Amino acid sequence: MGQYVAPLRDMQFVMHELLHVEDELKQLPKHAEIDADIINQILEEGGKFTSQVLFPINHSGDREGCHHDKEHNTVTTPKGFKEAYKQYVEAGWPALSCVPEFGGQGLPLVMNNSFYEMMNSANQAWTMYPGLSHGAYECLLEHGTPEQKSVYLPKLVSGEWTGTMCLTESHCGTDLGMLRSKAEPQSDGSYLITGSKIFISAGEHDMADNILHLVLARLPDAPQGSKGISLFLVPKFLPNADGTLGARNPITCGAIEEKMGIHGNSTCQMNLDGAQGWIIGGPHKGLNAMFVFMNAARLGVGMQGLGLTEVAYQNALVYAKDRIQMRSLSGIKAPDKAADPIIVHPDVRRMLLTAKAYAEGGRAFCTYVALQIDKELNHPDEVVRKHAADEVALLTPIVKAFITDNAWIATSECMQVYGGHGYISEWGMEQYVRDARINMIYEGTNTIQSLDLLGRKVLMDNGVKLKKFGAKVQAFIEQNGTDEALSEFITPLADLGDKVTKLTMEIGMKSFQNQDEAGAAAVPYLRLVGHLVYAYFFAQMAKIALEKQDSGDTFYVSKLATVRFYFARLLPETAMLIRQARAGSATLMALDADLF
Amino acid sequence: MGQYVAPLRDMQFVMHELLHVEDELKQLPKHAEIDADIINQILEEGGKFTSQVLFPINHSGDREGCHHDKEHNTVTTPKGFKEAYKQYVEAGWPALSCVPEFGGQGLPLVMNNSFYEMMNSANQAWTMYPGLSHGAYECLLEHGTPEQKSVYLPKLVSGEWTGTMCLTESHCGTDLGMLRSKAEPQSDGSYLITGSKIFISAGEHDMADNILHLVLARLPDAPQGSKGISLFLVPKFLPNADGTLGARNPITCGAIEEKMGIHGNSTCQMNLDGAQGWIIGGPHKGLNAMFVFMNAARLGVGMQGLGLTEVAYQNALVYAKDRIQMRSLSGIKAPDKAADPIIVHPDVRRMLLTAKAYAEGGRAFCTYVALQIDKELNHPDEVVRKHAADEVALLTPIVKAFITDNAWIATSECMQVYGGHGYISEWGMEQYVRDARINMIYEGTNTIQSLDLLGRKVLMDNGVKLKKFGAKVQAFIEQNGTDEALSEFITPLADLGDKVTKLTMEIGMKSFQNQDEAGAAAVPYLRLVGHLVYAYFFAQMAKIALEKQDSGDTFYVSKLATVRFYFARLLPETAMLIRQARAGSATLMALDADLF
Repeated sequence: MGQYVAPLRDMQFVMHELLHVEDELKQLPKHAEIDADIINQILEEGGKFTSQVLFPINHSGDREGCHHDKEHNTVTTPKGFKEAYKQYVEAGWPALSCVPEFGGQGLPLVMNNSFYEMMNSANQAWTMYPGLSHGAYECLLEHGTPEQKSVYLPKLVSGEWTGTMCLTESHCGTDLGMLRSKAEPQSDGSYLITGSKIFISAGEHDMADNILHLVLARLPDAPQGSKGISLFLVPKFLPNADGTLGARNPITCGAIEEKMGIHGNSTCQMNLDGAQGWIIGGPHKGLNAMFVFMNAARLGVGMQGLGLTEVAYQNALVYAKDRIQMRSLSGIKAPDKAADPIIVHPDVRRMLLTAKAYAEGGRAFCTYVALQIDKELNHPDEVVRKHAADEVALLTPIVKAFITDNAWIATSECMQVYGGHGYISEWGMEQYVRDARINMIYEGTNTIQSLDLLGRKVLMDNGVKLKKFGAKVQAFIEQNGTDEALSEFITPLADLGDKVTKLTMEIGMKSFQNQDEAGAAAVPYLRLVGHLVYAYFFAQMAKIALEKQDSGDTFYVSKLATVRFYFARLLPETAMLIRQARAGSATLMALDADLF
Repeated sequence: MGQYVAPLRDMQFVMHELLHVEDELKQLPKHAEIDADIINQILEEGGKFTSQVLFPINHSGDREGCHHDKEHNTVTTPKGFKEAYKQYVEAGWPALSCVPEFGGQGLPLVMNNSFYEMMNSANQAWTMYPGLSHGAYECLLEHGTPEQKSVYLPKLVSGEWTGTMCLTESHCGTDLGMLRSKAEPQSDGSYLITGSKIFISAGEHDMADNILHLVLARLPDAPQGSKGISLFLVPKFLPNADGTLGARNPITCGAIEEKMGIHGNSTCQMNLDGAQGWIIGGPHKGLNAMFVFMNAARLGVGMQGLGLTEVAYQNALVYAKDRIQMRSLSGIKAPDKAADPIIVHPDVRRMLLTAKAYAEGGRAFCTYVALQIDKELNHPDEVVRKHAADEVALLTPIVKAFITDNAWIATSECMQVYGGHGYISEWGMEQYVRDARINMIYEGTNTIQSLDLLGRKVLMDNGVKLKKFGAKVQAFIEQNGTDEALSEFITPLADLGDKVTKLTMEIGMKSFQNQDEAGAAAVPYLRLVGHLVYAYFFAQMAKIALEKQDSGDTFYVSKLATVRFYFARLLPETAMLIRQARAGSATLMALDADLF
């Protein structure tokens, strides 16, 4: 049932050689003591845990799925999930990047991020349970009252309790302004919440003693729309003052969804029948508080896409080396065998390299963004913090949408490497494709991400954040533009940078007249900027690889080949994207809805 | 659970207005009596049958799947499948385009083809049972002995018995030269066949009394490789002289596969333990005979992709009109509702129009190819037959690969229209995506189709077939090039035609030096030629639509909008494809397999 080996060498390359994480962390007082050894050691341990504990229950978890017992209001996770979670908690993994004040280990997010890549490679459905807890932790840390923090954070940090985000209702997902769940204030300062939520990942399960639901609902005096939404902390069991669990709160699972993939994760319809909750972040400020959670979740979804890309690649590679079929068009390569291994065929290599490039490009990009979050949170200089925050804001929708779109492409190509076996469940590949598909949808569809990038992060900002990031790209181009060996990468990077600048201005002008122009351009625009970001990181990686390609370490030879493939075969998508982004809204909007 | 309504208006447009099928058939003595009324009547009946009988058991068939009873060697199809098949047989549908000599209705393939689109929209998994029978019918009709034909063809034509193609073994799919199943000649002229086959669609089931397996195996004196393969007819039950069923032949289902989709179709491992069979097409000429089946099957797979594209579009459209979420960026469109229907959003329209354009382009293209097959088979003029045969040979890999790739794109976009609901099984969309995925793999992967097109159909032929098709495109361009109203379509069509010509020569020169160049270019090349074909048909459709757009029939307004969308948003893919096809093999082949 396949394999997963954490890509430690490439993670270390990104951390130490590309991003100089150790040096960057030295500037953050909180993380100044982190050195490369600590990073490598944690990554190594993470690799063992994910390969040995999470990966072996990934396929079986998909086949078995979750089971809902209506009578007893319980959801049972697949065999082994609970035990793996116990090991995860006992090893202290949930606390990795949490603050020491509440029991955390205080390590930087950039390390936690790489661990999440591994967990998602090994088992996305399982990883969603602790992943949502971490989002709840971040939301509560920023917006909770001191009392809420003292009661709930230690439990989330230790992993004893897990968290959820209860946003969606059957009639509203993207448009949360329409939500109907109600919160009635009680004399003790708490609220009784009534309503029905859908698509609640990890809403009910048997892996932890308690579940902290973060629930969006309306107060009686709430204004209409998205400005009338408040956020509530609604525990499954009400904690007693002594920390033990008290009464069962009436927030229960009505059903779990049958879905395309991530079968190991329980997707619950949750019913609240006067469940007791406590407000977080103040009345009508729920969306603001929830956005902390959402932003963390969007980065997390990007890591899901990255994890699946990596594991699909690893397995397709094993198959392509092992499976013999047909002879190479350019002459027999394995004369001792009845046919050549299929990795000799150019198009099989195209499929493999597509996944390899998207994995390595995504890894560099995500690690960079995680490091910017560490700087945003912990750099002593406010200007640096602001700059990092701006970059994170700009890049988050790209992490979410570009990486998950690429994961859909990459997992499908890896499945295709297997031929007919790719379609058969026991080979494990088709699960990656099914699992990858949700990442393009949840936490804001990829269309929503594109609108967020183009509308909110670029146009409403007059392009300031984009220009700041562009200046970094430009600086790299100028520093290396005269290096002949790099020109094969620098020239197309500079060309793409110019085109993105011009295109942004053009769309900005057009959408000033007609907002639908932004809506028509947003999706190709996001992919275009995604390629600019990847080309920038790949060019930097090429620089390092060129310097070290004769070092005897073949890692750099492989890296350089991947970069060259990216520029030759994936970057050309930009020629299409520019045309699509410039095509305007008229051909989309012309037709009356009745004539479709 | 969704809907399916046969797109009769568009089918009639393609048949009568675009392709003038009635006039074309008048030139074929066998079909000279077919008029538009007959065509419309059959299409209408087909629409009723598929909507009312096949569609209602599509989703339930997916959820239930097939069940294998090892002890009794039986496979049970999902609830309702057997009954639907009975209705299908009783209505005479299997005989539609079969020759009257063996009980067929003798109607042209072009009509059968449209019926298959409908069947695949309604229920691909179910349609594979009769679809494979039809392939077996065609193979036997061309290569069977008179006795074989008289025994088996009437049963296949009536649908009482079904057929399979038993090619793949666990160690060989694409590379059939490696297959190991053995056929021992017997004194009575029959053979005893022993071996094990995998991925046998409809290999065992409960829908028909008997199954005719067409099995590839080796004779004892067979040369090695693909030149030593023979084809055998191996019935599940040996027919007695009086037509009744005799002994059970030892060809049995060892297991059925768990797979990503098409759960309603039984994908069987078939074991032959000295099963009695009769040779078809002569010793060592099995692949030649099987190619009749394969070509029919490849067109059939294209129709599967088309069918899924259409039904996914129809359902996404219903959802997009019904679901309200957010306000239009350009101003409120439905003030009486709490939000606007999502069809107001540009990107939702992009997703819908992608599916609409791929459905309508694919329909025009497939219908055209099916008509060419009718001409190939039945035109009195040998030159016309040859010309038609050449076109069919050239276009078959494009039908198979381009349409199924597009179906993967389109079904995924339609699923995305649903947001989170798209991922949930009960909404029905995710099934279309899962079902669509197999079509890119079986009957020769899409990479194999691309190599067939570029290698065998274009380069080995010195581009003759491509030039002949190109001359048709060129003639259309010259006839309409001065029409100002058409220039928005003619100009990019002519431009693309020039580029395909140049690119073909360039790849031809490069691959003359190094065959891997063809392998590296094949996949983007096929999609590029696919777009040339679609642009050609869309331009023709635009011409008709422009002439009739003021007729009061809004069909033409819709058609014109679809064509404009295609040229604005889908055709730009060619800018990427040309760059990819020209990128050469070096970036694919540079890396040693050990360094991946």
